[in-house]
Amino acid sequence: MSPEFDFIRWLRARTARNPTVLVGPGDDCAVLAPARSRVLITTDILTEGTDFTRDLASPREIGRKAMAVNLSDIAAMGGRATAAVVGLVIPQMGMSGDGIRELYLGLEEVAGEFGVPIVGGDTNSWNGALVVSVTVLGETGDCGPFVRSGAKVGDAIFVTGPCGGSILGRHLNPRPRLKEIAHLAAVATITSCIDVSDGLSADLMHILDASGCGAILDADAVPVHPDAVRLSQQSGKTPLHHALADGEDFELIFTAPIAEAARLLGEPHALRIGTIVETGLWLRDSTGVFPLEAMGWVHTFAARE
Amino acid sequence: MSPEFDFIRWLRARTARNPTVLVGPGDDCAVLAPARSRVLITTDILTEGTDFTRDLASPREIGRKAMAVNLSDIAAMGGRATAAVVGLVIPQMGMSGDGIRELYLGLEEVAGEFGVPIVGGDTNSWNGALVVSVTVLGETGDCGPFVRSGAKVGDAIFVTGPCGGSILGRHLNPRPRLKEIAHLAAVATITSCIDVSDGLSADLMHILDASGCGAILDADAVPVHPDAVRLSQQSGKTPLHHALADGEDFELIFTAPIAEAARLLGEPHALRIGTIVETGLWLRDSTGVFPLEAMGWVHTFAARE
Repeated sequence: MSPEFDFIRWLRARTARNPTVLVGPGDDCAVLAPARSRVLITTDILTEGTDFTRDLASPREIGRKAMAVNLSDIAAMGGRATAAVVGLVIPQMGMSGDGIRELYLGLEEVAGEFGVPIVGGDTNSWNGALVVSVTVLGETGDCGPFVRSGAKVGDAIFVTGPCGGSILGRHLNPRPRLKEIAHLAAVATITSCIDVSDGLSADLMHILDASGCGAILDADAVPVHPDAVRLSQQSGKTPLHHALADGEDFELIFTAPIAEAARLLGEPHALRIGTIVETGLWLRDSTGVFPLEAMGWVHTFAARE
Repeated sequence: MSPEFDFIRWLRARTARNPTVLVGPGDDCAVLAPARSRVLITTDILTEGTDFTRDLASPREIGRKAMAVNLSDIAAMGGRATAAVVGLVIPQMGMSGDGIRELYLGLEEVAGEFGVPIVGGDTNSWNGALVVSVTVLGETGDCGPFVRSGAKVGDAIFVTGPCGGSILGRHLNPRPRLKEIAHLAAVATITSCIDVSDGLSADLMHILDASGCGAILDADAVPVHPDAVRLSQQSGKTPLHHALADGEDFELIFTAPIAEAARLLGEPHALRIGTIVETGLWLRDSTGVFPLEAMGWVHTFAARE
C-alpha cells in the first residue's frame, strides 16, 4: 500500500467528534455550525525549500509551523479559530508513512491546543517536494476584527513579545497569540493589529501604509529576543537590527489609543515600542531620531497577501 | 521585478467590491458577513503532472478547473458557494507573468459565473512545478446539506448528465452543477449526493458505503457521453465501461425517495440510472444482472478525502 493511501486510512480513523462540526472529513465538504458572528478565513501554503527544509525540520515541526502561521493570522484579526482544512502534496520518494503521520500530528497538535478541529482536506502525492496548504476559519468576537487600517495619529504601538533571530529555530515553533490578544482586547481598545511574519518594521509598515500614517519607535523599548543577540554574534549586525528586520517571529504588533495605553501597563504581552505619527518610520535613541527602513525577509514580504 | 511580485501587485488592483466581503485580500484574514445558515468548507489541491500538464492545458484552463472542482464539491452538498481563497506555488522557471495572470483569470472567471468572490490567498514561487490550492466556503439552504450517508433502500438513483471520456478534454472545463442541484432540490427531496470525480460507479460506491446499502443500475439508462464513444474507439473498451469507470465528469449522482421520483420526470438534469437495494453493486441489462466493480481513476480514488 502506498504511504499516501495508508495515510488517508489512518487519518479517517482518528477524526474526533466536535459539537461544532456537523459533517467532518469524508464527504464532499465539511459542514460547520453557524458562526456566532463574522466569518474569518485565511490560507497559507508552505513549501519545502522556502518555508522549511526536511533536513533541518522534523515532519512534526513542519506540521506545527503550517498550522501555527495560519492561527497567527486569525490572532492578528482578534479572532477565535473555529476550523481548519489541510491540503497536502507528498513527495513520492523519501517520505515514509510515519513521516506523513508525524506531519499530520504536528498540524493536529497545534490545532488541538486552540480547540480547532481539522474538518477536511485533500491529500495527493507527486514526483516533487513537500507542499502543505492550510486554510483556517475563524469568527470575531464583539471587538474585532482588527484590520491593518485602523491606526490613528497619537496611538501607542505595542508588540506582544521579543523579536529577532527566529531563524535559529523559533520560526519552526511559533506560538499563535490567540489567547493573549483576546485578553488584551478585553483590557483596552485595539485600533489595528498584524502578526510579525516579514519582520517587526516591515509588518509595522503594512499597518502604516493601510492606515495612512507614520510611526516613531524607541530603540530602547524594542524587545530583543536572546536569539537576536546570539545571531548578531554570527552576523556582525546589531541585536536591534535583527529584532527589527528578521521575520517569522509571529508576535503581534498592535495599536491602542494613547488614552487607554495606561491600562496595558504591566501586561506581560503588551510591550510598548512607540507611537503613531503623521508620516514616515523613525527610530529614536539617546543620540537622536533617524529614518528607519521597512526591512524584512524579502521573499515573504513579496509573497504574503 | 519577479513575475510573482508583479502578479501580487496586479492582483490587488483588481479586487472588486462585494457586499458580503467586509475585508478582502491584503489583511491577515478575509472577513465575511455571517452566513445565513450552516457553513460549508472544501479544499482541493491541484498539481502539475497529476491534475493537469502545462503542455496540454492552458493557464486559463488550469485556473478554471481548480475553481470548478471545488465548486462542484459545494454543489454535491446542495450548497451555495459564498467565497474562495487561492494558494499558488508558481514555478520560478517557465511561467511568465502573463501565464500567472491567465491562471488567475481562469479561477476568477468560473468563480464569477457563480457570484463567488475570491477574498484572499497566498502566492509563493519555488524551484518546482505548479501547485494550485483552492478552498471554497459555502452555506446550505433549507434542504441541505446532502451528505453521502442518506440513501435508503428503494430510493431512485439519478445523475445530472452523461459521463465518460472526460480525459479527451472535458476534465479541464467541468461545469459545477450548483444551479441544477438547487433547482432539483426544490422539486423533490434529495436523500444523498456526490460529485463524479473518481468515476460514476466508484463515486456511487462512496454513497453506498456511507449509507450502508447497495445499488442496481440499468445499463440502458446510464447516460453515455459522446466522448466515451470516441474514447472507446481508441481503448477497445465499451462506451458504457467509460461512462461507469472514467473520472472527472463532475456531474452529480443523487438519490431521491421512490415516491418522489415521478416529480423529476422530464427534468433535463435528473437522469434516472437505477435503484438503491440492500447490498452489492449490480448492473442489469437485457441478458441478466451482473456484479459491477467500483472502478474509477485509481489515483483520485485513493487521494480524495
